[in-house]
Amino acid sequence: MRNFTSVQDIGDLSLALEKAMFVKEHPYADQEMGKNKTLLMIFFNSSLRTRLSTQKAALNLGMNVIVLDINQGAWKLETEKGVIMDGDKPEHILEAIPVMGSYCDIIGVRSFAQFENKEYDYNEVILNQFIHYSRRPVFSMEAATRHPLQSFADLITIEEFKKKERPKVVLTWAPHPKPLPQAVSNSFAEWMNATDYEFVITHPEGYELDEKFVGNATVEYDREKAYKGADFIYAKNWAAYKDPNYGKILSTDRSWTVDSAKMALTDNAYFMHCLPVRRNMIVSDEVIDGSQSIVIPEAANRVVSAQVVLKEILKDL
Amino acid sequence: MRNFTSVQDIGDLSLALEKAMFVKEHPYADQEMGKNKTLLMIFFNSSLRTRLSTQKAALNLGMNVIVLDINQGAWKLETEKGVIMDGDKPEHILEAIPVMGSYCDIIGVRSFAQFENKEYDYNEVILNQFIHYSRRPVFSMEAATRHPLQSFADLITIEEFKKKERPKVVLTWAPHPKPLPQAVSNSFAEWMNATDYEFVITHPEGYELDEKFVGNATVEYDREKAYKGADFIYAKNWAAYKDPNYGKILSTDRSWTVDSAKMALTDNAYFMHCLPVRRNMIVSDEVIDGSQSIVIPEAANRVVSAQVVLKEILKDL
Amino acid sequence: MRNFTSVQDIGDLSLALEKAMFVKEHPYADQEMGKNKTLLMIFFNSSLRTRLSTQKAALNLGMNVIVLDINQGAWKLETEKGVIMDGDKPEHILEAIPVMGSYCDIIGVRSFAQFENKEYDYNEVILNQFIHYSRRPVFSMEAATRHPLQSFADLITIEEFKKKERPKVVLTWAPHPKPLPQAVSNSFAEWMNATDYEFVITHPEGYELDEKFVGNATVEYDREKAYKGADFIYAKNWAAYKDPNYGKILSTDRSWTVDSAKMALTDNAYFMHCLPVRRNMIVSDEVIDGSQSIVIPEAANRVVSAQVVLKEILKDL
Repeated sequence: MRNFTSVQDIGDLSLALEKAMFVKEHPYADQEMGKNKTLLMIFFNSSLRTRLSTQKAALNLGMNVIVLDINQGAWKLETEKGVIMDGDKPEHILEAIPVMGSYCDIIGVRSFAQFENKEYDYNEVILNQFIHYSRRPVFSMEAATRHPLQSFADLITIEEFKKKERPKVVLTWAPHPKPLPQAVSNSFAEWMNATDYEFVITHPEGYELDEKFVGNATVEYDREKAYKGADFIYAKNWAAYKDPNYGKILSTDRSWTVDSAKMALTDNAYFMHCLPVRRNMIVSDEVIDGSQSIVIPEAANRVVSAQVVLKEILKDL
Repeated sequence: MRNFTSVQDIGDLSLALEKAMFVKEHPYADQEMGKNKTLLMIFFNSSLRTRLSTQKAALNLGMNVIVLDINQGAWKLETEKGVIMDGDKPEHILEAIPVMGSYCDIIGVRSFAQFENKEYDYNEVILNQFIHYSRRPVFSMEAATRHPLQSFADLITIEEFKKKERPKVVLTWAPHPKPLPQAVSNSFAEWMNATDYEFVITHPEGYELDEKFVGNATVEYDREKAYKGADFIYAKNWAAYKDPNYGKILSTDRSWTVDSAKMALTDNAYFMHCLPVRRNMIVSDEVIDGSQSIVIPEAANRVVSAQVVLKEILKDL
Repeated sequence: MRNFTSVQDIGDLSLALEKAMFVKEHPYADQEMGKNKTLLMIFFNSSLRTRLSTQKAALNLGMNVIVLDINQGAWKLETEKGVIMDGDKPEHILEAIPVMGSYCDIIGVRSFAQFENKEYDYNEVILNQFIHYSRRPVFSMEAATRHPLQSFADLITIEEFKKKERPKVVLTWAPHPKPLPQAVSNSFAEWMNATDYEFVITHPEGYELDEKFVGNATVEYDREKAYKGADFIYAKNWAAYKDPNYGKILSTDRSWTVDSAKMALTDNAYFMHCLPVRRNMIVSDEVIDGSQSIVIPEAANRVVSAQVVLKEILKDL
């Protein structure tokens, strides 16, 4: 593997899941692979799970890890060509990225959508500049439009808990007080489309995701119908994608909060969320504290997905 | 050892001191114990000595270390149950703590008293939530009411420097421009009470500590009498504990500053302080720069106390 | 080597260059040297290249690394003796430095000129306090007046690219919107003076550097004459050194920007800069993107210079 930015980079999913199970059972089996290899983790945005789980995965593989927090206020990178750099941006990405590449073997980048320019976000400008200029393998630790390490961990978790060969998996929008990127939802949809599960997306009118990610999913505006018979409920908030509302909040309707009444419509479904989660906005206490909530094992699988990806990249260095 | 939050967790003190001396002489003898074990150090408050010495101790034991600074402003944790999380706190401690636990083997937590609610502070709500929800061994890197790694280092230092079997150890309050928690003083008292030393506490009226920590100590309001014949003077500021003044400054009387005149009353006592120390408030330049000042070896012993504690926890993993 | 703060500490330059080439070819050959040795990197100022390259160098040598960012706002160190510390500085350098020394084997310090007091800056007060009080070997990760790890990397780069035994190397001032320290320029001049290269400095009137660093260099106010026949153009901005203008900007004249017209005067010179660089202020896009720009290999050599220095210090521990 050279770069890891979407489901396409992981190859055959059943093989990827086999690799995940191996890593989970034998976390320290491949420590020679990482010896003298340095992972540089670059954060343009804050992070808890990704920061810790990716470090843990790299350490499990015997790698050295260097973490760089880029305070957006303090260290602004110029990205335009031809500019006279006499303002507040002291360094150009054309130098910063290859220099960072020269001090490591693999680069992880976290850089969220900024909701200022949809084309800029959806072209993944920052992630692609790292791929283009760093001369190193690059993997996404959540980019503007996708969060593939999360989605891979989600897939592993569903495989571990599913009771049917082809479970019904429902991605449901839920309310949130701040506008959030579509990355987790896009990416989850993309990965679910790569499986043979029954995959349904439900959300209020106006919250349609980019068709590229929706793919073959059933978009069901009748929420009750969506929940009916579900084996997994995957909750997530996202801001509107469609113009002219890109990045806007259209609803904070708490009738979309995942609660026991709605879960009762399912086939005793498991509850999933990528975390952090706002209780009693996204999900009721009762559901997230209930026996079908699998948010903690889901988060724990972030080490597994990161370790598989790092291992595949190390193999091809 | 499962958790380390007070003197009670360390067991027999003479045995603990033997372990400390072994670690001091053979710092790298147990590197196999820490192999593939990850320490997660979580800081709710800033730190110099604890940050560096605990990392050093873990590295000496062959552990991996991940440091997480929780900027209180940026990442507020909701702790109340049943709340609708539509405000400025994006994550609930009920998720955050087990997730952090899933990425490591041992957790160190630093979380000071906030002086907003005495019951909240003295119930050690944050530390106990980590113990309760993390599923991992937890040790205090200074909590609201105790700083046991400091006290253990203090004990090691006294044992190294003492010239009598049962030295007279005096904890003296000293002035400071800001209200400081009682954690270091409480904890020092608790550990001294566990020894057979002669232990005296002296402070202005109104600065009485929690009786639970004072224990069998002699509380001596006559400062000169307290100093007389002392073998160790341990200076520390703390804000008032007793209601209705909890967390308040009642005095900045510099006649309590430890100076040469007062040290002359002692039996050539050693001067100790946990650092950082405000010169000419807590202690005069002359005393801290003098030959009886042992603040630097005291600080150096922080590696030793942390390493003993980590080793005992690793043993029982 | 005990400390590394200037060219004098590196000894014979041709021997140092041999060591650099060995390290470059065999980066992992000396991992036993660093085993159980801890490098503490202390940053009073922000850093990208120095932070990453020095960590990488230490990891290559098998060392443990602890990074401490000293937020100048949060953790002010008192440096004056005899002060009553009742203000906003909670710790004195007299305690902080020996304590930091007690938790590591080698200390790297980054502390820029502050332009408040020329004597304070040029006496290297902070760096020297670390040397004086830490009880550990100390090396500069850019101090007030010198940046020797950068200069050593510059020398290695020139040696790798030079086509003549004695190349003509030109240090040229270039405009910048903020007042920058003289450290990189001073240090580069000092290292060039230690070679047998032809070394020329060119800058507008008023930007004369400290004579101590200018040494035997030719100072050429006729910029075109300076460029003529050059093999290497080393661009850098610095604020005025001479009184009464110390730390001031006297010019932002963009006729000093390194561009293709001026590069055409040279003997097909290579372009160098320590980075970060402001494009179209210091250098035109055309020059830095051109085939003669060697700023990326120059930055990559920062790992090499740091690794040689750490290795020499480790040898003499």
